[in-house]
Amino acid sequence: RSGEMAKLTQLIDNEVFRAYATYTAIVLLKMMLMSLITAYFRITRKAFVNPEDTASFGKGESAKKYLRTDPDVERVRRGHLNDLENIVPFLGIGLLYALSGPELYTALLHFRIFAGARIAHTFAYLIPLPQPSRGLSWAVAYAVTISMAYRVLKTVLYL
Amino acid sequence: RSGEMAKLTQLIDNEVFRAYATYTAIVLLKMMLMSLITAYFRITRKAFVNPEDTASFGKGESAKKYLRTDPDVERVRRGHLNDLENIVPFLGIGLLYALSGPELYTALLHFRIFAGARIAHTFAYLIPLPQPSRGLSWAVAYAVTISMAYRVLKTVLYL
Amino acid sequence: RSGEMAKLTQLIDNEVFRAYATYTAIVLLKMMLMSLITAYFRITRKAFVNPEDTASFGKGESAKKYLRTDPDVERVRRGHLNDLENIVPFLGIGLLYALSGPELYTALLHFRIFAGARIAHTFAYLIPLPQPSRGLSWAVAYAVTISMAYRVLKTVLYL
Repeated sequence: RSGEMAKLTQLIDNEVFRAYATYTAIVLLKMMLMSLITAYFRITRKAFVNPEDTASFGKGESAKKYLRTDPDVERVRRGHLNDLENIVPFLGIGLLYALSGPELYTALLHFRIFAGARIAHTFAYLIPLPQPSRGLSWAVAYAVTISMAYRVLKTVLYL
Repeated sequence: RSGEMAKLTQLIDNEVFRAYATYTAIVLLKMMLMSLITAYFRITRKAFVNPEDTASFGKGESAKKYLRTDPDVERVRRGHLNDLENIVPFLGIGLLYALSGPELYTALLHFRIFAGARIAHTFAYLIPLPQPSRGLSWAVAYAVTISMAYRVLKTVLYL
Repeated sequence: RSGEMAKLTQLIDNEVFRAYATYTAIVLLKMMLMSLITAYFRITRKAFVNPEDTASFGKGESAKKYLRTDPDVERVRRGHLNDLENIVPFLGIGLLYALSGPELYTALLHFRIFAGARIAHTFAYLIPLPQPSRGLSWAVAYAVTISMAYRVLKTVLYL
């Protein structure tokens, strides 16, 4: 059973592992971008959460009014949390999947669809696009992760 | 010192690594399930956060009343975030632990207790069970992760 | 191109990988500490979110008054979420970076600065220190992760 997994000695020359590394880096960088977008909206909308962040606007009441929530800031933060909830499973299950020796074509299909769906999800969330755009892009990436988890469990199951 | 770690060439035939892969896939799938439970409660409780999600309920005020928080939805979301906070450390520390060459019996004990405790935590949170059920299941999984981290640092420490 | 990556057979004796394991364990343990600090503030400030957590304070209204938010609790929780948002990318990109065969000196520089910056970030958030302490420590760790991602993509790119 375990013989079905790719030999790790070939990992370096393994195109599946390189593809995993590439798409993982891409989706993690995309997730990191959410921090910058949050900061952008916090500054342009003047909507902060920490008192020390508004100190440059003066003291007392004049600064306190910038301690508030803003719909645009909250929207980006929800998108960021949704990324965490979905990219963390991809990180772990994708690694195990890449080590389980899938066909390169199948693996690329999984990684590309996942990355594409998560990028589409971000656009659908931030623009925002009417539903079911966001729901659909979420579901596609979710299904890809389930498909990889199924292969991992089928290949390595050891309870 | 580093010789104590398992030879990675044997990783594929390595039962410890297969056990790590199995239990990691299980807890990540369990975490992903929280998204579906959140969606279920959002729909049945009609409690949404994005205006575009309530468009099918009509325009204006008739749809706006569904933009609200619901205790059941918030409870699942807290459980989901708690999963992220605890399963992310397991993902990373567990991988390093599996590569540090532990005894199969000890490793299985760690993985099984962690997975069992996190599944118990979810039931304790969602039902909800009276305390200290949730606190205890959280603490058990936390202690298992600390124990794995201790072995990792003892085996590979390189500052 | 793939020949530039370290041979995985040498991973066990690989000082870069041991350094990655060490600093990953450290930052994940630091992140886990946030849970304990949150619990400490919830108990000392008597500020809970789940009704079952206040049952020991009595029934009805007498317990209900402890279901509230507290600025100190919320501050730790924000620090914890910021850890998740930044340590998850380090976990994934750092692993791929360690496998991409960097110079030991360069890799240690990356790992040490990242860990140091995230520890500084926690102090800046929890004390709290005046800005730009928190912003700067966040940006340093962010830049280190981008630098590692750049090397990963340059070394393994396979789209």
